[in-house]
Amino acid sequence: MNQPGKPGTAADLRKVRINPDFWYPLARSHQLGKGKVLAGTFAGQPIAIARAETGKVFALEDRCAHRQFPLSLGTVCGERLQCGYHAWRYDRHGRIAAIPYAGPATSPPTGVRSYPCREAYGSLFVFPGNPERAERIPLPDLSLSDSPDYKPMYFSRQVNCHYSFMHENLMDMNHQFLHRRLMGRVRPELLGTAEGDGWVEAKYHFHHLGGRRHLGSDLLSAGGSRAEKHYDVMTIRTEYPYQTLTISGRDSEFPSVRLWCVYVPKDGAEKTNQSFGILMIRKPRIPGMVYALWPLLRHFAEAVFAEDRMAVEAEQRAYDEWGGDRNQEVYPVTLAVRELLIAQGIAPEPDTSG
Amino acid sequence: MNQPGKPGTAADLRKVRINPDFWYPLARSHQLGKGKVLAGTFAGQPIAIARAETGKVFALEDRCAHRQFPLSLGTVCGERLQCGYHAWRYDRHGRIAAIPYAGPATSPPTGVRSYPCREAYGSLFVFPGNPERAERIPLPDLSLSDSPDYKPMYFSRQVNCHYSFMHENLMDMNHQFLHRRLMGRVRPELLGTAEGDGWVEAKYHFHHLGGRRHLGSDLLSAGGSRAEKHYDVMTIRTEYPYQTLTISGRDSEFPSVRLWCVYVPKDGAEKTNQSFGILMIRKPRIPGMVYALWPLLRHFAEAVFAEDRMAVEAEQRAYDEWGGDRNQEVYPVTLAVRELLIAQGIAPEPDTSG
Amino acid sequence: MNQPGKPGTAADLRKVRINPDFWYPLARSHQLGKGKVLAGTFAGQPIAIARAETGKVFALEDRCAHRQFPLSLGTVCGERLQCGYHAWRYDRHGRIAAIPYAGPATSPPTGVRSYPCREAYGSLFVFPGNPERAERIPLPDLSLSDSPDYKPMYFSRQVNCHYSFMHENLMDMNHQFLHRRLMGRVRPELLGTAEGDGWVEAKYHFHHLGGRRHLGSDLLSAGGSRAEKHYDVMTIRTEYPYQTLTISGRDSEFPSVRLWCVYVPKDGAEKTNQSFGILMIRKPRIPGMVYALWPLLRHFAEAVFAEDRMAVEAEQRAYDEWGGDRNQEVYPVTLAVRELLIAQGIAPEPDTSG
Repeated sequence: MNQPGKPGTAADLRKVRINPDFWYPLARSHQLGKGKVLAGTFAGQPIAIARAETGKVFALEDRCAHRQFPLSLGTVCGERLQCGYHAWRYDRHGRIAAIPYAGPATSPPTGVRSYPCREAYGSLFVFPGNPERAERIPLPDLSLSDSPDYKPMYFSRQVNCHYSFMHENLMDMNHQFLHRRLMGRVRPELLGTAEGDGWVEAKYHFHHLGGRRHLGSDLLSAGGSRAEKHYDVMTIRTEYPYQTLTISGRDSEFPSVRLWCVYVPKDGAEKTNQSFGILMIRKPRIPGMVYALWPLLRHFAEAVFAEDRMAVEAEQRAYDEWGGDRNQEVYPVTLAVRELLIAQGIAPEPDTSG
Repeated sequence: MNQPGKPGTAADLRKVRINPDFWYPLARSHQLGKGKVLAGTFAGQPIAIARAETGKVFALEDRCAHRQFPLSLGTVCGERLQCGYHAWRYDRHGRIAAIPYAGPATSPPTGVRSYPCREAYGSLFVFPGNPERAERIPLPDLSLSDSPDYKPMYFSRQVNCHYSFMHENLMDMNHQFLHRRLMGRVRPELLGTAEGDGWVEAKYHFHHLGGRRHLGSDLLSAGGSRAEKHYDVMTIRTEYPYQTLTISGRDSEFPSVRLWCVYVPKDGAEKTNQSFGILMIRKPRIPGMVYALWPLLRHFAEAVFAEDRMAVEAEQRAYDEWGGDRNQEVYPVTLAVRELLIAQGIAPEPDTSG
Repeated sequence: MNQPGKPGTAADLRKVRINPDFWYPLARSHQLGKGKVLAGTFAGQPIAIARAETGKVFALEDRCAHRQFPLSLGTVCGERLQCGYHAWRYDRHGRIAAIPYAGPATSPPTGVRSYPCREAYGSLFVFPGNPERAERIPLPDLSLSDSPDYKPMYFSRQVNCHYSFMHENLMDMNHQFLHRRLMGRVRPELLGTAEGDGWVEAKYHFHHLGGRRHLGSDLLSAGGSRAEKHYDVMTIRTEYPYQTLTISGRDSEFPSVRLWCVYVPKDGAEKTNQSFGILMIRKPRIPGMVYALWPLLRHFAEAVFAEDRMAVEAEQRAYDEWGGDRNQEVYPVTLAVRELLIAQGIAPEPDTSG
């Protein structure tokens, strides 16, 4: 089932399921206190993430083996998770540890699935694929978010579209026209593209042609001095299944801004996703300035995202109305990311792919 | 169509339709004044219940034979029900009595179905099955609700699940863990089970192990003196299609509490039900005390029911997500009631039962 | 695909699609300023209607050929419509005029469909059928709405039913019983019927038998003097795909009231329609009186329409629950309009018509 699609085939990208053999964030760490459990989801699979009193986290299928009651409505007892309905207990591997009222003669029923689970960068990551592969698949590198030179801004929003629309949206910067009210008149210049095993990248320079723009637009594209700004380069990279947008001065080693995103499918048909983002902003030289500007920056980022969401959700609706992909794509960068997503994803079942 | 399923077969219980050859309450008497009509429903069948000026009630299919306008939006004229759209008139047997504007040459079209209808215990009962069987099928015995020693509390709530989840929920008292916030720590002891033609019964004694509990929990389990309470026995009985829960002191002839329930399917797929309940509470010896305590008792009963509803609706959702029953039931009482519901219900059509 | 159904066949009228080879109003003129664009819809087809700065209107498929983003969210540039996502430009014929970022080597992709579009009587009409036929199909005659002797009242409401229920509702005046609270007791007398190529007509006289009625009911049926009113004749006419209701005194050349209606399907299944209506009311002899009475007249008209909507939506629900038409129609006028709608409409595909 997990064979990747072949590039160049006529697979309908909107039916390509995301590859589960990666680490996906399902929640923020602060949402899960000690001795608590929360409900996450990945592509139609409900997943309960629990934290023992020791602080350790573990993840189980969020349906009791008995009567499918959500384990996320249960209670944590030591390193076990107890169903809130008839009090069946599970260990961290999903095995049934106790059925309080069952006699010893009862042969223990099948337990529930467990998921590899890791905590890093203030987030709870789950590996929904083949657990044997979890060890050798690294977490995404989000070290910038821990750096004292940067301040991270977190986003988590449900977006009602297939994850592929998100990748294409960001990769094709000609969509700046969508943000004309926030960014003014912009002419994006494609500086170059690159691709490799599992990734596609495009570099842009933005020419501002005038028009009123949101103050946050200026701030985010400015890496430091005005001169440096003049040579800003924006790099968009899909490194499957993640995506980054990095703005750097031409001669600067450290980016002024980096956005890291992942679009985690929620439903089984993968027509909705939870878009997680971390926007890592390099602190200006004036101490405390980043805090003063934070509300403005957040307003700008939210406003841009709201426009993108409107666009990608309109694309999904049109797809559903037609029952198929009628895109006429002409932009090489977008074509490259489409091929990548097909190659790395899980091809749809033959009977549904037509 | 009405052949009961065979016990022991692999029938999917959640697709077994309820047997319509019983009396089902669709409304309370006080909801239907003289010369009025109301809308009820049974398993996808809309049913209009009308009361003539004489007080007599009758029930018709709630769709005019002409253009399917709901007859419950019409008017009562003597012992006839008149459609509110083009004024066609029906007698109490569903026959067309008049089409005001049609010439005498018009051959009278087919009328609508009528349902046997009876009023008792302050409720309006309808017999949705084969009307020829209605005469020899008795109404449920709710005489306790009329006794001066008891005060009845009525419930009517839509619950979005197949009726079978309701029976299983009540029958398996190990689900007290669900009510831990209201009832404290309870260890239910199964005293014994019994079954017969059309019924299954289980007797429990509850050991309270401590923990804070709702005051209503104490009141409802107390039949009189504290000593008597110590020996309280709870009897759960599914007597198809009804269910009762009775709490009695060991030596007491009269129960301190009896709950009578029926779960009337609303939609054609029987995935929602209207849960009707009458909680009959024996009045304490101090006159008037029951009225003083009533708000507290109702709050407790509603809170327990809200937790049960949450659980059974989660079960239905999990069933729908999986497209089948994945329960791993180990409790003999629950297994017995499942078999009863299959044996007494209507087996699903072959093409849908798989 | 556009062959009309044959009269007398067993076609399910509720699956007969409306004939697109007519002019349908999708919006009012005042809703579309210069340099603006709005979103309309016809039977599941989204249609963007744009107005150039010159005032000229044109209509395009409301989905960009690139990624199906709604063109109605774009901007008007001269006589072109520019997509709001990646700024592709379309001329008034739907041809792609420019892709700002594409090199000259890019072969221009297929554009989008354009629709004949006309502005008249303060409304924007679109011809959704074969554009070659648009020239010889006239707009509906709404000249009364422009006459100084009449004042028009406009209606536009979504009604969740197939358009055929609307025609039948109006044509069968025996449904006055539905409006008994607004119109009192009325006995409609059918004076006669007529039919021809593409139309059916029925003439009624109303006998008022008493009962309280809305003041607006009196006003609208009164063409002038009380004596004239006594001989009011109401003519209902379906002239495919439009419908009119005209009230005239027996000897009067000019009607006191004319209602013109069209029921434009919104969704692809044509189970919802946008009901557009123009109620043209002859001004009373006292100058300004019509303005004083306007709020009362509007209240009455809205109240009548609300009752009709409730009825036709109940009919659609019953149809959907049964998966077919179970009407037992006995009224010749209704039977005639049904046959007309089948003959003029588009027969359903064989596999869905059963």
